[in-house]
Amino acid sequence: MAANPGEKKSFHMDPDEFRERGHEVVDWIADYYKRIESFSVLSQAKPGEIRFSLPTDAPQQGETFENILSDFDKLILPGVTHWQSPNFFAYFPSNTSGPSILGDLLSSGLGVQGMLWATSPACTELETLVLDWLVPALGLPENFLSTKNGGGMIQDTASSAILCAMLAARERATNFQSNQTGVQGKLCAYTSTQAHSATEKAIGIAGIGRDKLRLIPADKNFAMDAGALARTMETDRDAGLTPFFVCATVGTTSSNAIDPLSQIGPICQKFGAWLHVDSAMSGTAALCPEFRFIHDGVEHADSYCFNPHKWMFTNFDCDCFYIADRAALIRTMSILPEFLRNQATESGAVIDYRDWQIPLGRRFRALKLWFVLRHYGIDGLQFHIREHVRLAQQFAEWVRADDRFELAAPAPLNLICFRLKSGNEDNQHMMDALNRSGDLYLTHTKLDGRIALRMCIGQTNTTERHVQNAWRRIQEEAGKLG
Amino acid sequence: MAANPGEKKSFHMDPDEFRERGHEVVDWIADYYKRIESFSVLSQAKPGEIRFSLPTDAPQQGETFENILSDFDKLILPGVTHWQSPNFFAYFPSNTSGPSILGDLLSSGLGVQGMLWATSPACTELETLVLDWLVPALGLPENFLSTKNGGGMIQDTASSAILCAMLAARERATNFQSNQTGVQGKLCAYTSTQAHSATEKAIGIAGIGRDKLRLIPADKNFAMDAGALARTMETDRDAGLTPFFVCATVGTTSSNAIDPLSQIGPICQKFGAWLHVDSAMSGTAALCPEFRFIHDGVEHADSYCFNPHKWMFTNFDCDCFYIADRAALIRTMSILPEFLRNQATESGAVIDYRDWQIPLGRRFRALKLWFVLRHYGIDGLQFHIREHVRLAQQFAEWVRADDRFELAAPAPLNLICFRLKSGNEDNQHMMDALNRSGDLYLTHTKLDGRIALRMCIGQTNTTERHVQNAWRRIQEEAGKLG
Repeated sequence: MAANPGEKKSFHMDPDEFRERGHEVVDWIADYYKRIESFSVLSQAKPGEIRFSLPTDAPQQGETFENILSDFDKLILPGVTHWQSPNFFAYFPSNTSGPSILGDLLSSGLGVQGMLWATSPACTELETLVLDWLVPALGLPENFLSTKNGGGMIQDTASSAILCAMLAARERATNFQSNQTGVQGKLCAYTSTQAHSATEKAIGIAGIGRDKLRLIPADKNFAMDAGALARTMETDRDAGLTPFFVCATVGTTSSNAIDPLSQIGPICQKFGAWLHVDSAMSGTAALCPEFRFIHDGVEHADSYCFNPHKWMFTNFDCDCFYIADRAALIRTMSILPEFLRNQATESGAVIDYRDWQIPLGRRFRALKLWFVLRHYGIDGLQFHIREHVRLAQQFAEWVRADDRFELAAPAPLNLICFRLKSGNEDNQHMMDALNRSGDLYLTHTKLDGRIALRMCIGQTNTTERHVQNAWRRIQEEAGKLG
Repeated sequence: MAANPGEKKSFHMDPDEFRERGHEVVDWIADYYKRIESFSVLSQAKPGEIRFSLPTDAPQQGETFENILSDFDKLILPGVTHWQSPNFFAYFPSNTSGPSILGDLLSSGLGVQGMLWATSPACTELETLVLDWLVPALGLPENFLSTKNGGGMIQDTASSAILCAMLAARERATNFQSNQTGVQGKLCAYTSTQAHSATEKAIGIAGIGRDKLRLIPADKNFAMDAGALARTMETDRDAGLTPFFVCATVGTTSSNAIDPLSQIGPICQKFGAWLHVDSAMSGTAALCPEFRFIHDGVEHADSYCFNPHKWMFTNFDCDCFYIADRAALIRTMSILPEFLRNQATESGAVIDYRDWQIPLGRRFRALKLWFVLRHYGIDGLQFHIREHVRLAQQFAEWVRADDRFELAAPAPLNLICFRLKSGNEDNQHMMDALNRSGDLYLTHTKLDGRIALRMCIGQTNTTERHVQNAWRRIQEEAGKLG
């Protein structure tokens, strides 16, 4: 098994080659952002097209970096939908920025594991600090601070945050027994009909069952009807069930509806239910005092999350998850095998984030968030959030002023739901034509059974010009219909 | 809310500045790898030291990139444990490489969301392809191929893979009812006393309860005792319980023990239990035909995972997860809200990986794995895996040849468990002294109630010189005892 003398001694890329290739990749990205508007926003690839353009087997021998990068450019790029295009208005923003990309690059370069404090103290401590920074910056309650009984951490997504919150709630509601003895079938959870599917997914995973998830009707603004919530919880309690968890949404994915936390909070308190606030979509807006109303009542929350990887110029994955009583979460998620024992953990003086999440391992994700906060400052972030909201509100004005169109929902922030008045088919045709054209990309939802198109303005480089062009193209396609 | 004319119009880093700063960060990383041996491997930071060296509040105004990078170097780096140091022998390798870092950088640059095929076809198709590439490369069964009824995908960690496997098993065992109706308390799972804590965590999360996890005793080699497994499953079945899930390990974290899949497989079949094979630690070795024995019997597996982010030069996170019957997993994890509906999904012609995992969103992680496979080729990967195993076996020889020491477990691959014969205290003292010195980093486990030190050889740049130095330092510290 010994290496033969004369044979190649290493296949690794050495630091000097890394420097050279790294510069090339950085240049590729810089050039990509310069030419990004030349691409069709939505990839026009057909199923299988990318896969079958590539070899069916792994290469036996290594290849040159030139070849790899060239194949990436020629064969992979046509299958990419350009989420970072300023003409991307679909789903939700998933914006990133130079400082974030470079912070994440350093994380890849260091290649540290942050599962325990002891495995790289800076990875844990910077994360705790930066999450603490965001508490006052977003007007969140002090009990989310790590210096109180709470604390924040980065999860991959709001789906995982909701699952962790639900598990901690499940344990609290069962006197921390269900991890040990299994779920007994008495727990009930609540969210609105408009909420993200993550809660439905989580209650299945947690062994409670989707039958025990009550979808509370929404009011005319698509926000949770708090009265209906209270009545449903009461009915369940009277039937011998235990209302244990409510997920309220600040900015639904569908239409940006904001559930009334100030009303929901006291109801949760009355029933002893855990309140999780899912601000994944819109929480970032609270950086601006004038939008902080979205968090009215958040002081009732047991847990909360928002996504810098949606609307705060930080690349995926970066969901900020806060908890008021960190002991409940840690008691739920902690298992300490011998091979992870160490003095720092046993002293209790440190945070081990593996006890706050489902995976064991974790990447140094705080770096990118720290880079973003320091590069922009709160001022810079506020500026761009305000600009996105301004552009969205201007778009809403244009919709209102065109008789063929109507707004389909209130638009408190940066998502405009609108439609042609002429019916579902026209809207679907218009959307498909726009997306096929490659000029812009937008997606749909259903509100009160009718299709609504969603214009979500939050990409890093979107400016007035892009929104104007989008509206011009929408009007143009509308003109071609029937 | 309109921006005042004259005010700054954008706080973003433009492509030209990105190019310049990007080169600086690449240079920082290249230089880091050149000087990595000058650092104490284990960070010597005290709890709170890093955090309290930084401001207590987020900056109001943005700062220069020079300042950010300089603070990173001065204030963060002292809190970093150098996992990529060639003198890192602790826990498990978590190795990375130039091609991986650069593939991941492109992923950050593109900033695409791969939750659905439609949201970026290349992100899904490259992942499916590269995972298919690894099936023959590792000698895995054909039923894991996406071109059959199976398929592979990238999970963040083996913990998440085990949870997803267990959930699919739970659903299959309950005729796909428990997602809907909740867990009913009849299911039993099995793993060895030596297995990773992830199974224990998963069974709590899944609502089944840790009481229903049987820890099967290990044989003298710390591998699962298959006879004991069969007897325990029989006892449970006779008691009216349903044995539904077995997690077997190929390379335990503790001592690299390899459970006998060829014996475990038929037992699972007899009881109708799902077999998950956790090869997170050691699966990569199967790239070499001479080590492929570790997978003997893997054809019985319903699911399988191994971690390129451990021992295949790919940065975290990258756990490759395979399933033989993808329909079972998809039926378990799928929820389709209106805002995610699209033609490609409804046609059934594509894979939507959000239905294979807990989070909704996903990053373009296949790029880094593709870059690694193409840069090294199978030949290059085999070369380095063989070299790691050769160095580990050489270390084992040195241990055997020194009367003060003994091997604490069989060492089939690249992890050597050893100890001073003079008792737990001496071993603990020696390890603490070595780690405090900063010259190397190793961790411990307990085997048969006694401390064993773990020398795990798998970092990218570890060569004979580093292993020799480590052994010299170990002998030196041993000489200072008593």
